[in-house]
Amino acid sequence: MKIDLLNKIRETNPVVLNISNFVTVQDVANGINAIGASPIMSEEISETDEMVGISSAVALNLGAFTKPQVDHILAMGKAANTHHKPLVLDPVAVGAIDYRKQVANELMNQFQVDVIRGNAGEIAALANVAWDAKGIDAGSGDQDVVEIAKAAANMHHCVVILSGATDVITDGEHVARVFNGSPLFQLHVGSGDMLSSIVAAFCAVSDNDYFEAAQTACLVFAATGQLVAGQLQEERPGTFSMQLMDELHLVTVADIEKIAQFD
Amino acid sequence: MKIDLLNKIRETNPVVLNISNFVTVQDVANGINAIGASPIMSEEISETDEMVGISSAVALNLGAFTKPQVDHILAMGKAANTHHKPLVLDPVAVGAIDYRKQVANELMNQFQVDVIRGNAGEIAALANVAWDAKGIDAGSGDQDVVEIAKAAANMHHCVVILSGATDVITDGEHVARVFNGSPLFQLHVGSGDMLSSIVAAFCAVSDNDYFEAAQTACLVFAATGQLVAGQLQEERPGTFSMQLMDELHLVTVADIEKIAQFD
Amino acid sequence: MKIDLLNKIRETNPVVLNISNFVTVQDVANGINAIGASPIMSEEISETDEMVGISSAVALNLGAFTKPQVDHILAMGKAANTHHKPLVLDPVAVGAIDYRKQVANELMNQFQVDVIRGNAGEIAALANVAWDAKGIDAGSGDQDVVEIAKAAANMHHCVVILSGATDVITDGEHVARVFNGSPLFQLHVGSGDMLSSIVAAFCAVSDNDYFEAAQTACLVFAATGQLVAGQLQEERPGTFSMQLMDELHLVTVADIEKIAQFD
Repeated sequence: MKIDLLNKIRETNPVVLNISNFVTVQDVANGINAIGASPIMSEEISETDEMVGISSAVALNLGAFTKPQVDHILAMGKAANTHHKPLVLDPVAVGAIDYRKQVANELMNQFQVDVIRGNAGEIAALANVAWDAKGIDAGSGDQDVVEIAKAAANMHHCVVILSGATDVITDGEHVARVFNGSPLFQLHVGSGDMLSSIVAAFCAVSDNDYFEAAQTACLVFAATGQLVAGQLQEERPGTFSMQLMDELHLVTVADIEKIAQFD
Repeated sequence: MKIDLLNKIRETNPVVLNISNFVTVQDVANGINAIGASPIMSEEISETDEMVGISSAVALNLGAFTKPQVDHILAMGKAANTHHKPLVLDPVAVGAIDYRKQVANELMNQFQVDVIRGNAGEIAALANVAWDAKGIDAGSGDQDVVEIAKAAANMHHCVVILSGATDVITDGEHVARVFNGSPLFQLHVGSGDMLSSIVAAFCAVSDNDYFEAAQTACLVFAATGQLVAGQLQEERPGTFSMQLMDELHLVTVADIEKIAQFD
Repeated sequence: MKIDLLNKIRETNPVVLNISNFVTVQDVANGINAIGASPIMSEEISETDEMVGISSAVALNLGAFTKPQVDHILAMGKAANTHHKPLVLDPVAVGAIDYRKQVANELMNQFQVDVIRGNAGEIAALANVAWDAKGIDAGSGDQDVVEIAKAAANMHHCVVILSGATDVITDGEHVARVFNGSPLFQLHVGSGDMLSSIVAAFCAVSDNDYFEAAQTACLVFAATGQLVAGQLQEERPGTFSMQLMDELHLVTVADIEKIAQFD
């Protein structure tokens, strides 16, 4: 993995444009900022083209959308394609709510995403695999997560990140797995959304190798969380989320290389 | 009080659906998560029925609504009644803004809430008692808060929580009071909203005894805050809010029993 | 500077009404609360007049507006003028997005703001000075920031705060500069928005001397951040933002006088 993409983010400070989930937007903005990129958010369709024009990558989060926002997401996805900007989709809760799955699929019929990042329940839904998702959580199922991720990647012609205790990253053929992480990520609601936007930041500096960018983003994020969790004596979700911001800013390529576990 | 409802939340991890106040939504989601339940938020009326269907309780916050959201709140309240899911209402600032009081009353004419959670100014407004509310704060008045809470409960046929330095909980006849807490709750904007959604989590595991659930939620929340505040040397609202998340995850039934003060 | 306006905020606890940026709203609410004022947010145009009526100052943030919000902002600005309440505008990203600049100018043609608070890129845009803004960040340019701020103040007939490593405050004729601060403010996304609303709190207690209020708000905020940063061994943006809340509550006039640097 090209862990030094992290340095490239810090050197070039790419603007990452987000359609955000209002639940987690502040953490996502601060996470993008902490790792060295520059966040911008938009809620108004009239500024879509200008916004995409000044950005180096676009992240679309389906966390709590309204119908007007779906129109905005559609316009932004199309503009990202037109401007050749990398496009990341986070399909929040499509595993639990059929309406969301339907919206996500309709959107992806109208623009081409480069990376999808979701938990097992969400990726299974997008691959049409039976899975017992639970609200915004992954839930449980007995299919192999690598096969699910590959099926979703082949169906949607993009890189898929199925994140969890082990992150699975695939372009439909090749597979990478990241074994770093911490159970504390599950205790902080914004973790997945933050990872999706950080994936966009890595895509922005990846010379269009989104499979590489996706793997590296997962490794950097998971390893940073593991470093933070390792300093805590107890499971402290509040302290974890605060120190995760600190460490996203402070962590070095060498820190990550020291503990990286992937194949 | 059945403090071990806390354990039941952690064992069953109920999904709590929220119409959220965008001001405090991230804290509310993390608070629900930290105590052991699973938060989900929705902004789109089309997914109402599915969302209520997968949830174990519903919390409606009037903190910063638009007219489209009022339609959504109405649909969600009705769906909660139809699906027999416990329904909690947080009537933010109805004491200060007549328009909000009018909206809250119109909503409650169209569905039946199980618990209302507000400060003295808000509950007084819903009981049609004169009170000098101040913005989102309780303000001041010279009526007896127990009588105000009982009047509101009888008028709206539900359990009422009037929260403050002492929390008053009543079904209109019986009254419980929780004396635990900390002045630091007032210094953190999301505290009341978080309590309302945690009340919903307790309702979800209460076998329909919402008076019991409401009392217990107040005790657990107030005692947890008191434990956190007791470890601080000074009034540190930022540190308090972070450690409140930690402690909501770590606190045990035994910790609470040790300091519980109620009648 | 009248640093003891800080005490006046804490004694009178003015209500500060905000049209908020959903990205940073929770931090802004908590920041207003921590310094001793009382925040209220609104999203619904129908409550505009009542909301302005109960408030002592109004802060309008253009951070992530939709067209319906622009109508709301317009109504609120006009109501603030009618009710003679001090009015602060934060023109987020008008330097990077022409659409936003156009909206900001149209709004300011229809009501009179008392203070504009932005970074160099934003203030340069409102003064029609060439500048290379970068997304939500200040970007870079070779014009003198004092001249830019004076031009914007004269063009919009109000006090202008151009904030950055040095804050420039001007009424178009007189200029004050605040040299306190910390680079950590740049690493926390909500800092500028929080300052804008804190400026509104100072305006509320300033007896209509908004130039004085603006300077003092900048000094108090910058000095408080400097005190927090001085206690950290490393650049920790998460810890900084949490302790900034603590210190906004704890900081005294004497603490600020001790380190104040301005002219």
